[in-house]
Amino acid sequence: MRVAILAHGKFPGRAKTAVGLLRYGDHEVVAVLDRERAGDRVRDHLDGVQDAPVVAGMADAPDCDALVVGIAPIGGGFEESWRPDVRTALQRGCDVIAGLHYFLAEDEEFARLAEEYGCELRDVRRPPDDLTVAEGTAGAVDARVVCTVGTDCSVGKMTASFELRDAARERGLDAAVVPTGQTGIMLAGWGIAVDRVVSDFAAGAVERMVREEGDRDLLVVEGQGALAHPAYSAVTLAILHGAQPDALALCHEAGREAVHGYESFSVPPVEAYARLYEDVAAPVSECAVEAGILNTSGLAGEDAAREAVDAYAESLGVSATDPVRFDADVVLDGLLDSE
Amino acid sequence: MRVAILAHGKFPGRAKTAVGLLRYGDHEVVAVLDRERAGDRVRDHLDGVQDAPVVAGMADAPDCDALVVGIAPIGGGFEESWRPDVRTALQRGCDVIAGLHYFLAEDEEFARLAEEYGCELRDVRRPPDDLTVAEGTAGAVDARVVCTVGTDCSVGKMTASFELRDAARERGLDAAVVPTGQTGIMLAGWGIAVDRVVSDFAAGAVERMVREEGDRDLLVVEGQGALAHPAYSAVTLAILHGAQPDALALCHEAGREAVHGYESFSVPPVEAYARLYEDVAAPVSECAVEAGILNTSGLAGEDAAREAVDAYAESLGVSATDPVRFDADVVLDGLLDSE
Repeated sequence: MRVAILAHGKFPGRAKTAVGLLRYGDHEVVAVLDRERAGDRVRDHLDGVQDAPVVAGMADAPDCDALVVGIAPIGGGFEESWRPDVRTALQRGCDVIAGLHYFLAEDEEFARLAEEYGCELRDVRRPPDDLTVAEGTAGAVDARVVCTVGTDCSVGKMTASFELRDAARERGLDAAVVPTGQTGIMLAGWGIAVDRVVSDFAAGAVERMVREEGDRDLLVVEGQGALAHPAYSAVTLAILHGAQPDALALCHEAGREAVHGYESFSVPPVEAYARLYEDVAAPVSECAVEAGILNTSGLAGEDAAREAVDAYAESLGVSATDPVRFDADVVLDGLLDSE
Repeated sequence: MRVAILAHGKFPGRAKTAVGLLRYGDHEVVAVLDRERAGDRVRDHLDGVQDAPVVAGMADAPDCDALVVGIAPIGGGFEESWRPDVRTALQRGCDVIAGLHYFLAEDEEFARLAEEYGCELRDVRRPPDDLTVAEGTAGAVDARVVCTVGTDCSVGKMTASFELRDAARERGLDAAVVPTGQTGIMLAGWGIAVDRVVSDFAAGAVERMVREEGDRDLLVVEGQGALAHPAYSAVTLAILHGAQPDALALCHEAGREAVHGYESFSVPPVEAYARLYEDVAAPVSECAVEAGILNTSGLAGEDAAREAVDAYAESLGVSATDPVRFDADVVLDGLLDSE
């Protein structure tokens, strides 16, 4: 599938979905839409991902099969400034794929255009309509279940999940990511956006996914938010208790001291944060932080990154890595066998 | 308003909403519907509440203005065995008030009957449609904010909330409950059922309610679920972080050792449970368990109850009471001034 990715004003630093698709997706990206960087190329901003031109709008994008909305404002609303691009995509016969709380299929104009031009509006954040409460049974699956948990939003949990999966597959294991957010769902082609699920059923949604894939060797459950986050902690805890993991991988961004977007709140020290996750998990499923995942993308130079990873490992008392800059394999042993 | 309350097979022990309305509601209850106890009276089962006949179905109920669905199965579905009672109520011109996840207004037959007979279908669990993520600002209100948190579901958080409110009002304080569940909403006439809110917005819903009522002296935020509950912990944490409380009242049922309905999970010891709530709350709002609320309804005799309350107070290191059997006022000082 050939796709264009909408990322106005946010590419690449605040365009998690766009960057995830460029790095891990199977789709050919024909263009990134960012009117503030039109004329650049992806390669000017990111290493180790597929290249594509950055264009000002859908009218300038090459032929493709779908437009993917690759950013999400806080609250998950639809920004009206994106409307011309979605309209143009539909008029060109492209499907539109989005992970917003606002469902494109319920937008009158888009629904009408999609019908007129024979395209599909795919809202990947729309949960199944038969979810219910958790039964507390995810722990019974055969698979080793690892959760990527974080000290904040946007520290690299989704990336870590796919990197850990790939490292496990390289060892010959049958490994899968359990996608809990819009980008992971777009990458894996299945999953439930837990933040869009009615809170009573959020743990149940995770439990259902873990049980469905429970015959594999390894499941890496993609975490969301953070346990001490003033807005998103409920989603985090639903995943932790719903998945009943055997081990945790604590994801952190080097140097992050305040909660992103909520700067009056400090991020607790990583050692204390690890204990908090373990203490809250324990009554439902005993597990420990068995790996540290550090996002060093903000550090210049390999030496500084290596030093930060080593310090992070020492703080946590477990192996640590930056799976993008270095290698995910070095933390797999700890996650696969913590007994 | 004169109401009948549907509680088939669950009255009184598993009919939280029904009992709450009988104990704290302003409505005149003309009948309780429980086909397994038809012919009894409320007074045969409960002390200190208004009396009413227990009848087999709506056809046997005296004239009234509304039928309230006073029970909710796990998952919040509608039981088809209740359909004849709802149908009869509508045909008699009664409104029907429910707090289920299943919205009566979306049931084709009920919607048609309601229109035909000029009645209203009120689904109190339906959240406002303009909710969004929390901003982390509930802590800025003038009111003292107390959360009733629990060691399990159905241990008495809703009851404790209203008892604490009433005790504060007796001292002349401007106090209100912030209702977060269907019964509390029915009793207080406002509120948001947080368990029905999209998980991303659950903390935001609580924050909005606290801010709206923030000019009072005291807000008692009704807790839901429990922090170590395998299914409902997300709702619990959304309330804890969304409300940013100044103090916590830990609610427990004497003798409860396993999670109700999830008996393979133990309820952690109350001292450890108190620390867990404090540790998880701290990064968002520093607060401590400043009162113990013990439900002693399962204990025979005042001596046993007094002994259990004293032991609970000692375990927690704070004042404790059973606000139904004894008095809520004795724990107010600790909650109002923990500095």
